[in-house]
Amino acid sequence: MSKMDTPNKIYLSENEMPKAWYNLRADMKIQHAPLLNPATLEPINDPAQLAPIFCTELAKQELNTKDRFIEMPEEIYEYYKLYRPSPLIRAYNLEKELGTPAKIYYKFEGNNTSGSHKLNSAAAQVYYAKAQGVKSLTTETGAGQWGTALSMACAYFKMPLTVFMVKCSSEQKPFRKAVMETYGATVIPSPSNTTEVGKKMLAADPNTTGTLGMAISEAIEKAVTSDNARYTLGSVLDQVLLHQSIIGLETKIALEKYDIQPDVLIGCAGGGSNLGGFMAPFAGEKIQKGAKYKIIAVEPASCPSMTRGKFAYDFCDTGKTTPLAKMYTLGSGFVPSSIHAGGLRYHGMSPIVSQLYHDRIIDEARAVAQTKVFEAATLFAKVETILPAPESSHAIRVAIDEALECKKTGEAKTIVFNLTGTGYFDLNAYSEYRSGRMVDYVPTDAELQQGFDSLPNVGSL
Amino acid sequence: MSKMDTPNKIYLSENEMPKAWYNLRADMKIQHAPLLNPATLEPINDPAQLAPIFCTELAKQELNTKDRFIEMPEEIYEYYKLYRPSPLIRAYNLEKELGTPAKIYYKFEGNNTSGSHKLNSAAAQVYYAKAQGVKSLTTETGAGQWGTALSMACAYFKMPLTVFMVKCSSEQKPFRKAVMETYGATVIPSPSNTTEVGKKMLAADPNTTGTLGMAISEAIEKAVTSDNARYTLGSVLDQVLLHQSIIGLETKIALEKYDIQPDVLIGCAGGGSNLGGFMAPFAGEKIQKGAKYKIIAVEPASCPSMTRGKFAYDFCDTGKTTPLAKMYTLGSGFVPSSIHAGGLRYHGMSPIVSQLYHDRIIDEARAVAQTKVFEAATLFAKVETILPAPESSHAIRVAIDEALECKKTGEAKTIVFNLTGTGYFDLNAYSEYRSGRMVDYVPTDAELQQGFDSLPNVGSL
Repeated sequence: MSKMDTPNKIYLSENEMPKAWYNLRADMKIQHAPLLNPATLEPINDPAQLAPIFCTELAKQELNTKDRFIEMPEEIYEYYKLYRPSPLIRAYNLEKELGTPAKIYYKFEGNNTSGSHKLNSAAAQVYYAKAQGVKSLTTETGAGQWGTALSMACAYFKMPLTVFMVKCSSEQKPFRKAVMETYGATVIPSPSNTTEVGKKMLAADPNTTGTLGMAISEAIEKAVTSDNARYTLGSVLDQVLLHQSIIGLETKIALEKYDIQPDVLIGCAGGGSNLGGFMAPFAGEKIQKGAKYKIIAVEPASCPSMTRGKFAYDFCDTGKTTPLAKMYTLGSGFVPSSIHAGGLRYHGMSPIVSQLYHDRIIDEARAVAQTKVFEAATLFAKVETILPAPESSHAIRVAIDEALECKKTGEAKTIVFNLTGTGYFDLNAYSEYRSGRMVDYVPTDAELQQGFDSLPNVGSL
Repeated sequence: MSKMDTPNKIYLSENEMPKAWYNLRADMKIQHAPLLNPATLEPINDPAQLAPIFCTELAKQELNTKDRFIEMPEEIYEYYKLYRPSPLIRAYNLEKELGTPAKIYYKFEGNNTSGSHKLNSAAAQVYYAKAQGVKSLTTETGAGQWGTALSMACAYFKMPLTVFMVKCSSEQKPFRKAVMETYGATVIPSPSNTTEVGKKMLAADPNTTGTLGMAISEAIEKAVTSDNARYTLGSVLDQVLLHQSIIGLETKIALEKYDIQPDVLIGCAGGGSNLGGFMAPFAGEKIQKGAKYKIIAVEPASCPSMTRGKFAYDFCDTGKTTPLAKMYTLGSGFVPSSIHAGGLRYHGMSPIVSQLYHDRIIDEARAVAQTKVFEAATLFAKVETILPAPESSHAIRVAIDEALECKKTGEAKTIVFNLTGTGYFDLNAYSEYRSGRMVDYVPTDAELQQGFDSLPNVGSL
């Protein structure tokens, strides 16, 4: 093939897109510990126990450890076809710029107008709620990608939506708010006076800038106190990782189609949904067939739940209203420094990702400093043309580091990472980096201890 | 085919992407009038006369009326492969929402991270300059799409760039400025004190908010007074329409592949580049083979160069430094009302588009009010998920109007429009619309007359 015939992008045709999600738990030999009822600390084994929060089908998916594949309803499949399959792209220009023998590929999930992978689960969650006759949905959003994606899916399925947006984000990102409102969502800066839990948080600290954990508490209260409403979440939960498995399935189909054998798989990890979906079929092969992929989770040094957190039961929210999950966590009371601009600010980590890391199916977690992340992001933007989201750029940073290591050793490894989204709404952070005003932050052990002090005592569980 | 097998998106494979641009002028039976030297008013027939402004290859393309196809250099083709072919999408959801028997398709050019079709010409202009050893480039930008695209292409080809950004835009769209700077461009609000022509404009009106015409004057002065620099332009010129022909070529290949016969082709028109490129191969068939496509150009009612302008020689800039072009124009002194938020603010129109409209190869020009444009944009966003640019939404408005007409008559016409870009940086305008604060504006005849009074007197030409 001449260079002009070499594909840069491996688009699958629409009929090569998977029609079922892959449920990694069916292949996990060690299951993560069950969710616990926050009132009784009893394990949650029956979907009915989750029914006040999630619609029936999603509650079932949340607890499903049996079915390896779960078929997509036609309506969700049709929605996916509006923007999927997403491309798998060979980063020829980045390779050239680095002078590395490594082959670098990225799965680009920002290739839809919500700008991120979040749409994969948003479409599913809204569809199931609609199908069940749910009258409205609530959620929270931090950086705003989840809120944007959910607003788009709600507009499409004609479902009313209230978004609790972390207050500092809603102030720093007015356009994020505007795009959600354009799609018809009601956006409330959190904490707010519209919920009891929000009022308490404001009473405790009237100047709080909010956290994702606080916004979750408000969204859940709003859901359980409204008429036939449900709560939705953009990460952490098993159901979300299930929906995100389409990323990994498409990646695997594309790699196999072109006979490409990956050595290293890299994803950023905040709540764990993109990494969990991206690596799912590869992790399944490791567990079931002993495949040799190296899987790396990348997190910010300023919110290091996997590299410096505890593997323990914790609440998923600050208000301590959610079920407890066993996960790597910094404690629901941990508040990442406001000087951290790079997203991935959640205190915990998906129970599936946590368990796989604990069992070293995920080989490594790596914490990176935000200035190094933005350095990688800016280089990537210039040579690959795509302006990456700060979150996604954590994966770029480590992909570059791995490729530079190959340059030293001369190894021609195949590195595949997940580029979860675009950075159009993060230009303040880019400007801060460019001007030299961005600084790095690493929490002290004492600061981490404050977070750990907020961990619940669940006895001998 | 079951519904699950019906393609929503017609992606061509990379090897179906055209390897040559289509030069419509080779098929035009009536050529547009030549450019005139602004000093002598003599026709420009020799590329050497354009050499101080454009690099050699682009100057040749600007005047080429002979070669039907112009082969893309491999470097440009490789660049296109980073984001092309772009999808042609069937708007099933919009059709359903409207209840129309019409079939609606859109070519989506916002499917690259510059967010618009402008990248097609940016890549070409930067490449040719780089190949010739040009040391830096200048340009102007209004809404910012061209500046963004050019910044990305300059980062890729490692070419320094100065962008003169219309002052009111640089204030209203700080993130547009930030994205260009992230890609390494120097952005100067225009008019500025960095050029002689800018100083004059500021002296005449210290509070001016700037116009595209003013920014062009500054960019040209900067190019001709810097060491081995050249000027680049994102629309209007024949070379730009040539590069944009890839839109129309891909559209035609995709339609033919699926045996779809278009009845109506719609594009928005500011300077004319997206419409010119989109309709080029269809217009060629009309001229050469009598094909029956209806081609509609859509412009804002507040800057109505085709529907209310004069077909006359005019300067392309406010400072009256460019060659003169014969085109539909409101006069280079015309300043669109600042209450117009919808883009497409240029006083003139591509000479090719102007000539084709004059000869009714372009069947119709239609002016639309901005509130009706944003109404269409919001509906489109909700049902098709893509947040469209205000400029592109002019085409959406007319596509919807044509589809609603089909609903009345029962005709199942096939309507194809060009969706040039996304509206991520236009959320102020969306918010204005949503809040009911957006108003429409139509210039009075007296206001238009002021613009016409600025037209140059070129004697009997």
